[in-house]
Amino acid sequence: MEKVLLERIYTEQEQSYISGLQELLRIKSVSADPDYEKDCLCCAEWLNAHLNKIGLQSTLLKTRTKPVVFATYPGKPNHPVVSFYGHYDVQPVDPLELWESDPFEPELRDGRLYARGAQDNKGQLFFFLKALEALIAAQALNCTVKVFIEGEEERGSGGIIEAAEGWKEQLKSDILLVCDSGTRAAGVATITLGLRGMAGCSVRLIGPNKDLHSGMHGGVAPNPATVLAQLIASLHNADGSVAVEGFYDAVVKLDEGDRALANKYFMDPAMYEKLVGIAPSGGEAGYTMAERHCFRPTVEVNGMQSGYNGPGMKTIIPSVATAKLSTRLVDQQEPEDALNKIIAHLKARVPEGLKLEESERELAGPALRLSSNSALVQKAKGVLEEVSGGEVEVTWMGGSIPVVSTLVRVSGAEPLLVGFGVEEDNIHAPNESFLLSQFKQGFLYTGLFLSRL
Amino acid sequence: MEKVLLERIYTEQEQSYISGLQELLRIKSVSADPDYEKDCLCCAEWLNAHLNKIGLQSTLLKTRTKPVVFATYPGKPNHPVVSFYGHYDVQPVDPLELWESDPFEPELRDGRLYARGAQDNKGQLFFFLKALEALIAAQALNCTVKVFIEGEEERGSGGIIEAAEGWKEQLKSDILLVCDSGTRAAGVATITLGLRGMAGCSVRLIGPNKDLHSGMHGGVAPNPATVLAQLIASLHNADGSVAVEGFYDAVVKLDEGDRALANKYFMDPAMYEKLVGIAPSGGEAGYTMAERHCFRPTVEVNGMQSGYNGPGMKTIIPSVATAKLSTRLVDQQEPEDALNKIIAHLKARVPEGLKLEESERELAGPALRLSSNSALVQKAKGVLEEVSGGEVEVTWMGGSIPVVSTLVRVSGAEPLLVGFGVEEDNIHAPNESFLLSQFKQGFLYTGLFLSRL
Repeated sequence: MEKVLLERIYTEQEQSYISGLQELLRIKSVSADPDYEKDCLCCAEWLNAHLNKIGLQSTLLKTRTKPVVFATYPGKPNHPVVSFYGHYDVQPVDPLELWESDPFEPELRDGRLYARGAQDNKGQLFFFLKALEALIAAQALNCTVKVFIEGEEERGSGGIIEAAEGWKEQLKSDILLVCDSGTRAAGVATITLGLRGMAGCSVRLIGPNKDLHSGMHGGVAPNPATVLAQLIASLHNADGSVAVEGFYDAVVKLDEGDRALANKYFMDPAMYEKLVGIAPSGGEAGYTMAERHCFRPTVEVNGMQSGYNGPGMKTIIPSVATAKLSTRLVDQQEPEDALNKIIAHLKARVPEGLKLEESERELAGPALRLSSNSALVQKAKGVLEEVSGGEVEVTWMGGSIPVVSTLVRVSGAEPLLVGFGVEEDNIHAPNESFLLSQFKQGFLYTGLFLSRL
Repeated sequence: MEKVLLERIYTEQEQSYISGLQELLRIKSVSADPDYEKDCLCCAEWLNAHLNKIGLQSTLLKTRTKPVVFATYPGKPNHPVVSFYGHYDVQPVDPLELWESDPFEPELRDGRLYARGAQDNKGQLFFFLKALEALIAAQALNCTVKVFIEGEEERGSGGIIEAAEGWKEQLKSDILLVCDSGTRAAGVATITLGLRGMAGCSVRLIGPNKDLHSGMHGGVAPNPATVLAQLIASLHNADGSVAVEGFYDAVVKLDEGDRALANKYFMDPAMYEKLVGIAPSGGEAGYTMAERHCFRPTVEVNGMQSGYNGPGMKTIIPSVATAKLSTRLVDQQEPEDALNKIIAHLKARVPEGLKLEESERELAGPALRLSSNSALVQKAKGVLEEVSGGEVEVTWMGGSIPVVSTLVRVSGAEPLLVGFGVEEDNIHAPNESFLLSQFKQGFLYTGLFLSRL
């Protein structure tokens, strides 16, 4: 199908596409919080029905956690088998008071659709489904398509990664399309050549058997809040590098070609500061912002809590202090090994009498690196040039799509990561949104790319 | 009035004393939380009516925050004027789920009355009122008594400290009785010869203008949770001493006599560990547990919060991180100066781009030190020997009663601190309670002491 025809279909159908997406966004599929268990199931059912409706054969695959929506379209022989990966779960919405509109009541403002999941990943999977629908309706789809939409990406895809071995036959394919990444700016097309891996967990530092009066016990009892702060502080050196022994063992030296490409296409620091309100001053000294994002591992505190945090003062020594930690991984770093090293580092520094417990461990997967020279990447580049009308950039994504390395291994497919999200979309934050113009680009890219295979 | 008569009155009236105290404990007078504003007023009104009922002339003194209940009883000439200080406000109750019974529905179990404030300070002020009532009813009270019960002790008594200068005439007295302290063990009588001072505030470390995706921004944006942990860690040296420049400038060398007394009567470390579930391993190296409690200043984290702390993972770089800090002061340390030094220490270490804001500053007052040789202390010792039947101990209290140094100065009175709380009372923590046997000791001590003046 040609671009001009796809554009015409999009223009005719845009309203129906938006209202379909809005319907999907109203389902509160927060995978991290057990309170939303039923909403996640409901979301899977909705997609299952929708895929059947637009001409695929869809079913739900069971896992130990959330089901996977799995749908197939039988193409013609001698055409490639293309898998598509997406996820229907979304991040929690708190702090709710910072949202300008209800996170689960999508609102269109200034060309953007605002809702939790508007971009990550419901918006990005929906343009794929709509492009499929258009091609199927026009009988213009020749390749076999397998759609795989999971429901626990935002909490590490643990159940999927376990179950995937059993789906070897279903998942077998030549190409794995992943649309959960982004681009530097609206209108600029980007191919993502790598993802960081991730692992994370909660830690709980246990001190006195109850909150203590900080006057009666100050200077006598150890303070878990203070000690947890000291433990967290010990995770980094003064230059911002990670102080955990052996953490960098599996990190390889930067490839000079990749380094140059990463720096060439990366966001300008001034633009970054404008967007997030702070200069890109985090991470390790000695690397550019692009290099730290694309190629360097991190240890981050995602949450931290102890004692009294309400209005006024409560003069206590807290009984416990907790934190949520995660690590982004590169190259050959193994999630389990990296997390073990971090926990061992912390435990070795816990003063006598206090106790550090780990829980909620999530091993999201190792990093992924692709080659910029493959025929597939070149083909995508051609399509993206046509869609965007400009130079196609490459990047390495600091984020993680935990299940992708597993799916690549199990399916035997060559992955291709092209996404249409931009920084202003505020994914994982209040007021998440997706530009309709980017939604359209995604639709055109998917339609053209699948037509040309 | 003799001890045997006071004991008879107590036995006859115990049920009525308990139900009176239960009524007072049902009033949710949490001063730190604006949601309980009305309850605090209601509590002041209740005490005002109660004091009038038992034979004093009571009124409410206005402050910029909570009113003070102020009542007088006109004694005979040539008898001393005795002030009594207490507070009707209580600490917040969270974490509520750890309470075994409703904190505001007093429950009697195994000789203890359980409720927020059961000891601190409603229980300890109530036995004073009941002893007064008994003496007045028996026409056995010769001295003039001034009862001063404030409503913001648990948040630093700021309004009282400001207003007190204006009450010079009302407060003028010879002796100031303070019953907001404790004793080492039930049945053991203790005179408190000192209090630590206190100051505290909240700090807020502001980073990115929103929570950021920890994959897209990890290693690029600075992480306020990590940085706040580093700032908190910087407050102490490896030996547990406070690392803030000039913090110890106004701390004097320990008096060897006081040091010996403090160590003689202090709780056994094994007993401490049994009570609070952890060895007394906090504070500075080079000082005993007793010395650290009685004579050394501290900096404590009372609360700490950043990012996501719900179930599962939320992989963000938090936009802000907050903490509540307080410092206990000794000797000549000035609350404002100490807090200024702590904040300056933190601000000097905030990395560029991040911003540290201070709020909710509470200057609770400097430390207080009494002489163990005064005639008043000797008189109290005699009465306590008679009531307890054992050796009377002395201690220096690690806690603070912010307003006491102000009241001492304004009233011109000599303070006397005798309290009947014990560690197991869990003040400032879930399941606060007060032993009825200690309530009775307090009643007998008050009655005998006032009779003998």
